[in-house]
Amino acid sequence: MEKTFERFTLAHGSGGELTSQLLEDGVFKLLQNEYLQKRHDGAVFELSGRLAFTTDSYVVSPLFFPGGCIGDLAVNGTVNDLAMCGARPKFLSLSFILEEGFSKDEFHAILSAIREASATAGVLVVTGDTKVVERGKGDKIFINTSGIGQVHPQAQVDAGNIRPGDRILISGPVASHGMAIMSVREGLAFESQLQSDTAPVHEQVLALLDAFGSDIHFLRDPTRGGVATVLNEIARQTNLGMAITEQQIPLEGQVQSACEMLGLDPLYVANEGIFIAWVSEAVSVAALQQLQALSPPGQQAAIIGKVVTEHPGQVVLQTFIGGRRVVAMPSGEQLPRIC
Amino acid sequence: MEKTFERFTLAHGSGGELTSQLLEDGVFKLLQNEYLQKRHDGAVFELSGRLAFTTDSYVVSPLFFPGGCIGDLAVNGTVNDLAMCGARPKFLSLSFILEEGFSKDEFHAILSAIREASATAGVLVVTGDTKVVERGKGDKIFINTSGIGQVHPQAQVDAGNIRPGDRILISGPVASHGMAIMSVREGLAFESQLQSDTAPVHEQVLALLDAFGSDIHFLRDPTRGGVATVLNEIARQTNLGMAITEQQIPLEGQVQSACEMLGLDPLYVANEGIFIAWVSEAVSVAALQQLQALSPPGQQAAIIGKVVTEHPGQVVLQTFIGGRRVVAMPSGEQLPRIC
Repeated sequence: MEKTFERFTLAHGSGGELTSQLLEDGVFKLLQNEYLQKRHDGAVFELSGRLAFTTDSYVVSPLFFPGGCIGDLAVNGTVNDLAMCGARPKFLSLSFILEEGFSKDEFHAILSAIREASATAGVLVVTGDTKVVERGKGDKIFINTSGIGQVHPQAQVDAGNIRPGDRILISGPVASHGMAIMSVREGLAFESQLQSDTAPVHEQVLALLDAFGSDIHFLRDPTRGGVATVLNEIARQTNLGMAITEQQIPLEGQVQSACEMLGLDPLYVANEGIFIAWVSEAVSVAALQQLQALSPPGQQAAIIGKVVTEHPGQVVLQTFIGGRRVVAMPSGEQLPRIC
Repeated sequence: MEKTFERFTLAHGSGGELTSQLLEDGVFKLLQNEYLQKRHDGAVFELSGRLAFTTDSYVVSPLFFPGGCIGDLAVNGTVNDLAMCGARPKFLSLSFILEEGFSKDEFHAILSAIREASATAGVLVVTGDTKVVERGKGDKIFINTSGIGQVHPQAQVDAGNIRPGDRILISGPVASHGMAIMSVREGLAFESQLQSDTAPVHEQVLALLDAFGSDIHFLRDPTRGGVATVLNEIARQTNLGMAITEQQIPLEGQVQSACEMLGLDPLYVANEGIFIAWVSEAVSVAALQQLQALSPPGQQAAIIGKVVTEHPGQVVLQTFIGGRRVVAMPSGEQLPRIC
């Protein structure tokens, strides 16, 4: 007689019979590969050279949103952090913290999304963990993914390489992920038109590194806190100014409308499928053209500004109407649990 | 004016000013090294050869217990999973899910424990992440640590290498971690005498591999679900029998008393500082002696049984009084949130 269950209990986190059943029926079946097959405490593989290593925990709410769910977000987010190190993502770990009572059907839908996103990104989930906490001590499901990638041989991605005159490239339109989440939370009427941009960006990054090598000075994906936060971090870290032009920032019409309706500045809204590159001036137009040629993701890529010695540590925006204003580091929380 | 705070707010997870402050004041200050120094989305380092990769999320409750806290548990647990792959632990990632309202003082105490445990184990925390969830959607703090290690050149650790006749070694007394946690939860009078065994075991493992190489067939640390669960898993996976002798299983007096008082079988109680090794018969006594020589951790190491072709897939215990009973895989949850 096959044993089934509808909702998670604490016993699914015990390490015993139910944990085993949960793993065999779900994770191992859906994500099977030679590493998981070993059922060991960790995975062993051969890799050599410069490696990248990253981690992120995902607590997004709601779990399912237009354009994705916590599952593909957890894969793409970690894949993209590896890409930001100039690396080709290779291996992921996957760790769940489940709340007692969470539905098995939703869990399986998330696992399926993880499988699909891993296949798309060309990464293998090779090791994992599952814990269950009591009802009211978690929120359905939290996912941690950590990842290992192989750094591109020509990559010299380091904030210390950013120079005055560098151009600031963005690989696509801003604020899509955050507004997709907000549309569900706020029950906006045009909800169905807003889609998260969650997607892996490493192929675009690796193509840039193939073509331009160490002229790609730095990379960062503007997730939590959006473009404004990333630019502020890098301005501070380099003690250089970031001068950007509002008119150049790609923003889709319905995203802009939603931002206006909710009083949100799209520069502070999270993204999950774009990246910012600081590139030497000499290659910036060619790099832009290459990104744009990788359609559709890069069609709306743009040079949004440059690195300057004026206003060190600050981000300054030239507005549509010709004024200039400082884009500050956000001090509070605009959009909790966006990723 | 220096900004301070007593308790976490959602804004500490925003990616903005407060996240930055939190990281600079805490994680980066306490754990500083050349990799964290980069403040990037991931860490880049050189490593070559066979690598081990593992992940675990820690949800232990209470956070502080005799002998340790969630911080050193999260370091040692992942260090030990790497050791179970026959690897020397090298790099850790560290990801926090904090509940709004969690105290900064407790957080700093946990960070200090992480720093100390990392230094003891000789690993570097090189990348991390912090999320904050609303009050009532988490439980103070959950920690994920993932880790990368370098596999010992002579290691051939694979459940597929276990053979009938192999001896089953245990590196120290059982059930200490679980009973330390339970003593706090249940307010037992002898609470102060029960200490978690949380500790890194990789030096013991690497010494065994140095001396006995591929005669060390398999390794597993009996955490959640204890010795009984691990032996059952391996019996099933190999389709061999595990025959163990109650009299040989090292168990400290006060742990035994606590188990009896609470009606718990020590074979099912979690451990965090011991491991089980399946070794070829030929080297088993020498391996035991070597473990015992590595005092204090190994003083109570013991050969607790052997691998047999009888009762395939099952664990059978020869009891003190001479009887034999099957030690089943646990089906329910005995001790939730023990790690």
